[in-house]
Amino acid sequence: MEHIFGLHGSLKAIEGKGSHLAGLLLKASEVLASVEGCRLYMISIDAHDEDLIWVTEAWDSKENHAASLQDERIRSIIGEAMPLLDGMPKGGKSLKVLGGLGF
Amino acid sequence: MEHIFGLHGSLKAIEGKGSHLAGLLLKASEVLASVEGCRLYMISIDAHDEDLIWVTEAWDSKENHAASLQDERIRSIIGEAMPLLDGMPKGGKSLKVLGGLGF
Repeated sequence: MEHIFGLHGSLKAIEGKGSHLAGLLLKASEVLASVEGCRLYMISIDAHDEDLIWVTEAWDSKENHAASLQDERIRSIIGEAMPLLDGMPKGGKSLKVLGGLGF
Repeated sequence: MEHIFGLHGSLKAIEGKGSHLAGLLLKASEVLASVEGCRLYMISIDAHDEDLIWVTEAWDSKENHAASLQDERIRSIIGEAMPLLDGMPKGGKSLKVLGGLGF
């Protein structure tokens, strides 16, 4: 079966900076609209921690995802986001997306 | 800020039944296309465990999600899925979905 490449992971912001971090990720999602292979890029705040941001992604391929991280606009947003992070990002969980509704 | 109600959780199938379980969830996603308030219902297989199925959902409201579980067609699919599960479903993680791309 052909799979879409999925990722689900979290970024912990330093105290009080969750909303700022989420705003940067929403800006990134606008850039990704013009990047090849991005099917889904969903930004959420943890229901119990305003400084814990979850990102759920679906890509046509792992290679498309890797290429996006080389995009200058994405690199610039990553540069803005790094000082807001409380520690390094946790490695996102890899998923084989089968399908479903709404993306 | 207005949030979409998100859920991300897993279902563990008994050995060898992951694909069967995923197929039932994909059938559920077809039903959800005609149910109020479902924005996203994405079915994935864990990259490292073929019997661990992840479901990522986004709903206009928590109430819409609760109502969907009363739908006869969904209840019927849940009835088919239950015997395939290795233990009870883990409580999905609640998310406040802010936005993003592709759903």
